[in-house]
Order: sequence, then structure tokens, then C-alpha cells
Amino acid sequence: MTREEHIRRGFAQQSMMATIGAELTFVGEGRAEITAPLSKGFLQHNGFGHAGLTFTLGDTAAGFAAMTLMGLDQAVVTSEIGVHLLSPAVGDLLIARGQVIKPGRRQIVSAADVYAVTDGAEKHIARLTGTMVPIPAG
Amino acid sequence: MTREEHIRRGFAQQSMMATIGAELTFVGEGRAEITAPLSKGFLQHNGFGHAGLTFTLGDTAAGFAAMTLMGLDQAVVTSEIGVHLLSPAVGDLLIARGQVIKPGRRQIVSAADVYAVTDGAEKHIARLTGTMVPIPAG
Amino acid sequence: MTREEHIRRGFAQQSMMATIGAELTFVGEGRAEITAPLSKGFLQHNGFGHAGLTFTLGDTAAGFAAMTLMGLDQAVVTSEIGVHLLSPAVGDLLIARGQVIKPGRRQIVSAADVYAVTDGAEKHIARLTGTMVPIPAG
Amino acid sequence: MTREEHIRRGFAQQSMMATIGAELTFVGEGRAEITAPLSKGFLQHNGFGHAGLTFTLGDTAAGFAAMTLMGLDQAVVTSEIGVHLLSPAVGDLLIARGQVIKPGRRQIVSAADVYAVTDGAEKHIARLTGTMVPIPAG
Repeated sequence: MTREEHIRRGFAQQSMMATIGAELTFVGEGRAEITAPLSKGFLQHNGFGHAGLTFTLGDTAAGFAAMTLMGLDQAVVTSEIGVHLLSPAVGDLLIARGQVIKPGRRQIVSAADVYAVTDGAEKHIARLTGTMVPIPAG
Repeated sequence: MTREEHIRRGFAQQSMMATIGAELTFVGEGRAEITAPLSKGFLQHNGFGHAGLTFTLGDTAAGFAAMTLMGLDQAVVTSEIGVHLLSPAVGDLLIARGQVIKPGRRQIVSAADVYAVTDGAEKHIARLTGTMVPIPAG
Repeated sequence: MTREEHIRRGFAQQSMMATIGAELTFVGEGRAEITAPLSKGFLQHNGFGHAGLTFTLGDTAAGFAAMTLMGLDQAVVTSEIGVHLLSPAVGDLLIARGQVIKPGRRQIVSAADVYAVTDGAEKHIARLTGTMVPIPAG
Repeated sequence: MTREEHIRRGFAQQSMMATIGAELTFVGEGRAEITAPLSKGFLQHNGFGHAGLTFTLGDTAAGFAAMTLMGLDQAVVTSEIGVHLLSPAVGDLLIARGQVIKPGRRQIVSAADVYAVTDGAEKHIARLTGTMVPIPAG
């Protein structure tokens, strides 16, 4: 199994990703991108995408960015992560791009930016920064 | 419309809450509690509840705690929020209890603790702290 | 050397604490309190205490709260920490009370509340939450 | 008074900056850089720069980055900010570079990266992200 297969298998095992219709659209060294539709079932009271949806995509992109630096016997879990919501989640789909800020044996600091896409134009809607911790792969 | 009706209407308008099966189980002055099952569709790769689910409940509880201090013509949106994940989300259901730390006209600082419940026993799985901003009600 | 001596020695080794005139005013199981004057050399442009002073006290209280759970051969360093500033730092002195939220072998989640004291009355001015990591003692 | 004069006057009014020996070494549209020596009075127990020093520089750089977008009758205060500490603060001096992520009328989201410089070589030691709030200038 290659590292990309290991990562894609981990992604496929997350039922949350299937539920929100997310796809792992890019994987690179220290980077991962996740794309999901902005669907009717994930809105808040004002009709915008729920912060929970934006967070879920950003957290997962940050985590899989860290996963690209792990061995085939390792996975990661989020230890802590914070999100700044910059603009309402309005559009056709959301793209979260995660990137490792600082690799490490005990902890990896990762960030993610989330964009809302309308007619192909991206708007920056959130910035996340968090700490990922390696665990044995399941 | 009473304030509690205003709050419950806002909660009912969040399609995300219906999708995850969440209920608003308590509303008080500066406090709100949300309960949801730990369902199969919201897991991560190791079979635990996804951080996105825990976050969604905690963020919403923190937001509705702030809502209890708003007028009937106001709602709130999350400006930023961070989560520390303390233990795996394992159990029958999750309970998020939000509480206002500091009210304000322009910003409200709210916190939430999330618990996983197994056979009636609660385990503390997450602490969130964030900033809510009042907006005109929709 | 007792654990309290170990902790007080670590505190005494922090030149930053002497510079700001801070004292370790309480140490208990999972708890630590630090008190410092609100001195002229640590203000921001509007004459209030600088966020950096409030942060320094809160971060150190959170760290020493974690230290109370360490062995005599261990110290801790802050991995990440966030602060919500609730009210201006105005008064005679500042008190930071740290408390462990979740102990752990690899990471400890600690919180701290900072209070400004004027004529003996405390005002809550900041809440911090962060992650401490054990390291070998120097 | 030009905007840069307004900003430099605000910086000069912060006694904390004089205490740590910091200088405002660059101001641009949405950007600010602050440089300070890594002095003996601001260390933690292991001889590294104290997290409080790194935070103070990063927070101030993030705040002054926001200040560059304010009118001459406005200043900013930090509402909340978090710091990820990536490497020990070891070296001759510290440089903090702040940058506005998202401007706004009611809040500005700013980030800062802090670098430790040894013999002219920079090492990335911290990332901060926070929320600044405009207030009337003093």
C-alpha cells in the first residue's frame, strides 16, 4: 500500500465525509484538499452554511495534511483546533486546503483555509490552525 | 413571541441540527444545552465521533447560550471559536452545555463543554471557547 | 526535594517572572496562582495593562498548574494557548489562577482565569485555554 | 499627522514595547513588523525566551497590522488571540511579522509569525491568529 492509498483509505473510513458528500481532491507532501457541496442539510438559521460544516472540512483537511507525513502504521487525531470565520459560507461548494505548518514526532501543527466557490470564483471564508497528534493506525 | 420561542425558532431553522438529530434540551439565562445521538454517519476513521460533530454541538450550544441574552430582533453568528478535544467521542449520545463567559453589546464570549454519555454516565470530551457577534434576526 | 520545592524552583528560574514582579501565591493539586503588580512598564497605548502581561501571567499559571502533576524529573512547555480578553486590565494588581482541565501523559490541557484587583475587588479580565507538553526538567 | 505617524505614536505610547526593547521595524498596508532582542530578563525556566515575550511581540505585530487600516481617530485592542509555539525561542533577536487576514468595520482578523534570528538566519518559532476590535484613539 502506498502512502496515498493509506491516506485515501483513512478518508474513506470517515463516515462523516460520506455524510457531507466530501471528496479528497488533492494530496501532496504536507498538503491535502477536500471539496464538498454546500447542501441544504448543513445550514444555520440564516441560510448560510453552518460553522460546523466549515469546521469539519477545515479540520479534516488540516488532519490529512498531517497524515501525508505519517508512516503507513500511523494515523492522526486532532488535539485542538481553532477557527476564524471570515465570511458567510454561501455558494455552490466549499473547498478546504490544509497545510502543515510545523511537522513533529509528537505533534504536528497544521492550518487550513476554507473557500466558498460560486460560479468558479473562490471566496476565503475561514482560517483554522490546530494541533494533530499521531496515533497507531486502526 | 417570548425569548424562548425566539430561540427555539432559531434552533428549528438550523437544518444542520435536524441532520445530526440534535435537540435543544435546556435554555436558561446565559445557558443552553444541546443533546444528539452519536450516530453512524458522523464518525472518523477510528470509529469515534468526528471532531466535526463534537464541534458542531459545542459551537451551537455556545451560540444559543449567547442568544438567550439577545433581543427578539437579534440572532448571533460565531466569529471565532476553538476546541480542545479531551477524550474520544464514544458512547450513546453527546451533550453540549454552553455558557456565556462575558456578555457584551458588540461581542459575547461563550464557552461550551461537551460530554459523551454511556449508560447514563457522562465523560467530559471537549471544551470550546469562542466569540459570538450579534446580527439582525432573519 | 518535594514537588512544591521543584515547582517553586522552576518558577524562580523564570527571569520573566522577576521582571514583571510576579509571585507564585498558591500551588495545589492541578492548580496554581500567580500574582503581579500592574506596573507602569507593561502598559499598552491606552494606559491599560498590555495583553502581553495578562497573557504571560495566565500562560504561566496554566503551565504551573500542569507542573503540579509532573514528576520531579519533568517540567512543561506550552505547546499552544489562546486568550480571550474580557475587560481592560485596570487596577492595582493582577491575579492569574490556573487549573488543569485534562491531565495526560503526552499533553495536559490547562485553563487560567486572570483577574484585575482594585481595592480588593476582583474583576475577571481574561480566560486562557492551552496545551502543555511534558519535557525533561533542566 | 500621517497614518504612519499615528501608528508610530501609538507604538511609542506602549510602555511594554520600551520595556522589552522592541522597535517597529516596518509598517505597510495591512502589515507591521516588530523586532526585539532576546534579553536575559524575559526567559523561562529552561533558558529559552518566555512564551509571554513571543506572544507579546506577535500580538503587537498583529494589532499594528490592523492599525494600518484604521483612521487617524481609531486604535485597536485585541479581543482574542491564540498562539502556536513551533520551536524554542533561542537566538539573538526576535522578529514578529503581522498581517491582516480579513479587514472589517467591527472586527479585523490578523495573524503574525514570529521568527528567532541567530547570526542572521531566521527560524519560525510561532504562529498567532486573533481578532482586533477598533476603538476610539486615546
